[in-house]
Amino acid sequence: MDKDPQLQLRVFDLNCWAIRYLSKVRQQRIELIGNVLNQEGYDLALLQEVWSERDYWELKKKLCARYPSSHYFKSGVIGSGLCIFSRYQILDTFLYQYSVNGYPYMFQHGDWFGGKSVGLVVLKIQEIVFNIYVTHLHAEYCREKDAYLPHRVVQAWELAQFIQHTSKGADVVLLGGDLNMHPEDVGIRLLRGWAGLRDSFIAAEKVEGGEDGSTLLPTNCFTSKKELRCYPQGIRIDYILYKGLSHYEVKCNRHETTTGTAPNKDIPYSDHEAVIATLSVNKRALGKGLNHPRVEPVLVDVLNEARMEVRVGLHAAERQQYSCGRMAVLAVLLLLMQATMGLSSMFGDALLQPFPKFSFSLLSLLGVLVLLISAVLYLFHTIEVKVLQGTEEQMRVGLQTLQDKLSSR
Amino acid sequence: MDKDPQLQLRVFDLNCWAIRYLSKVRQQRIELIGNVLNQEGYDLALLQEVWSERDYWELKKKLCARYPSSHYFKSGVIGSGLCIFSRYQILDTFLYQYSVNGYPYMFQHGDWFGGKSVGLVVLKIQEIVFNIYVTHLHAEYCREKDAYLPHRVVQAWELAQFIQHTSKGADVVLLGGDLNMHPEDVGIRLLRGWAGLRDSFIAAEKVEGGEDGSTLLPTNCFTSKKELRCYPQGIRIDYILYKGLSHYEVKCNRHETTTGTAPNKDIPYSDHEAVIATLSVNKRALGKGLNHPRVEPVLVDVLNEARMEVRVGLHAAERQQYSCGRMAVLAVLLLLMQATMGLSSMFGDALLQPFPKFSFSLLSLLGVLVLLISAVLYLFHTIEVKVLQGTEEQMRVGLQTLQDKLSSR
Repeated sequence: MDKDPQLQLRVFDLNCWAIRYLSKVRQQRIELIGNVLNQEGYDLALLQEVWSERDYWELKKKLCARYPSSHYFKSGVIGSGLCIFSRYQILDTFLYQYSVNGYPYMFQHGDWFGGKSVGLVVLKIQEIVFNIYVTHLHAEYCREKDAYLPHRVVQAWELAQFIQHTSKGADVVLLGGDLNMHPEDVGIRLLRGWAGLRDSFIAAEKVEGGEDGSTLLPTNCFTSKKELRCYPQGIRIDYILYKGLSHYEVKCNRHETTTGTAPNKDIPYSDHEAVIATLSVNKRALGKGLNHPRVEPVLVDVLNEARMEVRVGLHAAERQQYSCGRMAVLAVLLLLMQATMGLSSMFGDALLQPFPKFSFSLLSLLGVLVLLISAVLYLFHTIEVKVLQGTEEQMRVGLQTLQDKLSSR
Repeated sequence: MDKDPQLQLRVFDLNCWAIRYLSKVRQQRIELIGNVLNQEGYDLALLQEVWSERDYWELKKKLCARYPSSHYFKSGVIGSGLCIFSRYQILDTFLYQYSVNGYPYMFQHGDWFGGKSVGLVVLKIQEIVFNIYVTHLHAEYCREKDAYLPHRVVQAWELAQFIQHTSKGADVVLLGGDLNMHPEDVGIRLLRGWAGLRDSFIAAEKVEGGEDGSTLLPTNCFTSKKELRCYPQGIRIDYILYKGLSHYEVKCNRHETTTGTAPNKDIPYSDHEAVIATLSVNKRALGKGLNHPRVEPVLVDVLNEARMEVRVGLHAAERQQYSCGRMAVLAVLLLLMQATMGLSSMFGDALLQPFPKFSFSLLSLLGVLVLLISAVLYLFHTIEVKVLQGTEEQMRVGLQTLQDKLSSR
């Protein structure tokens, strides 16, 4: 541990699982979270899944003395769920909403309605510029057959690109959030390799809390036991990542995770465990090179793997687009046939027979419904195809530049 | 004009008005545009409204010798329409799609389907890092009663913020595009004040072409004469803006606009005029301060004006959201009533009378349609409300920081 760090920061990160009417003992847990934030007096709290603005305002009221500056990021139908509480004044804010985020018709998963994004706030502490990012990526519902993997990879790529492009003026970059990826997943490797971020758990001098820094624990009474069937020791999907830029270097002194129930309580803060990192920021020693991230050849493989995943998603999206288009065309044909039959029954010989008006109009209702729904879904999947194509092309350009750099060494 | 500029760049910007099946003599004009780009050999061509990827590929094929590097930005249903052709290798690309962009049900305007965005490419020319932005904001259909003004202001704010946050590592920033705003409009003042960009037309040492640098001219055979009724000399809505950062300063030596027909042809390149700027980039003289943009007190007024416009949009969006919600509730009530009537007709006394099955099922069809459409629109306007609220809050934080800076001077 540094003997005399220029600045030490304690950062708290938690997916709060605060969905109104759905999350268990929500209000009680929000109160617990407020209490621990006040007691511990962290420098920064990065929260996710604070879906209700009322919960945010309650926390804000409670925390205003210890965390005078805060920001809630709004996006999507029910908000982004992201907010930041800070001891230091927030100077600027910005939001980037991911281009893809699941499907609106997957009501049971509901990620689409959240408008998943990455929020950025800029702070200045002792003349050091901090870019603080908070995010929450699309959930993984079934690891064996993960239909959302391409979307999550696109989100991880956009997150890495957003951080890369927006952090050039910062001295310290800090990202906290529920990334919904295991440490060895391609998205995490992208964030570490492409954006040059360090994982506070891996880099920490001292680790406390759950084994392997897991943030989904089987001992937590709110976690789905089915999800953790293959991972009896839990999974690590919540992270604090960082990097020092220009003249500053950052070290992680301590990485803690909570373990199930909150101290002296019989319930945990959330279905996720909180991550707490103690970071020290030091001026880089004279003579030590600036932090120009080294380009590692392995990054080519990571980028290729991510690109492959995007391509798999692209094929699936194109199939969906095609199915919806075909369904819309069939609905149009059905309606046209019905119109012809209707007209011929009015003016033709069919008048001699009784015309089945009721079932006829029920069939029209069905035709119109199918047409409307499949047309909207066709538009939706067309946008998805464009985004996936665009991401693949962006990755291709990045890969080209990377290979040029490697070959010119 | 500098006698020995370190680097001179000629930049071409044009809204190409290339909508398949709709834009007049599109293919012929795309060919003309390709010809002029090849003949003149600009360093960069920033194009908008290249809606069809086929047109882009045709241009790419034609221009590959003079402009070996190019990028097409994909987004929305029919693409972003944005592309860049460059003499220098494109090293990295990124896309930010604006959070609001008109309404999907305004088919006659169609902006929503375009997925309006700002595209960024990074170039390195003689070790100078260039961040090149190309964009196209929402069109203005009626200046007197402009329902899209709040959306355009949000887009201008997001554009300014995107440039501010992503350009810290660049030496030179260049933005070209159809901003759909007059030079004195609040969005342009935001871009100049908040993002510190200079207008090449105003800063140019020499101006050639249409009066007042207009890019919508009444002499252009494709422009809508109605739109220019109050502006007989034309309107300037296409811009090349720039700034020099770190150790570089940028000057605009020449600003040209085309005037109606292409040379030796009887048709113009587009319904817009092209903007061509000749810029020189010089190393800042020693002793001359770095380009830390001065904070002008007038910026507070600009930001307040923009915020007011966003608030106006917010009220309108809230009204729309409320109307759609009410309509959905009414449709549910209608369907419930029908279900009750249907059941009572089946089991009750009403069986004695003939039940009007046909008109009954037509009414159900109407009820289901209204419910579906109003529910989707309710979701849409809920997202719009969230974005406008979020933007207003972002502006408030910016304003606070600005006022702190001003009062600490």
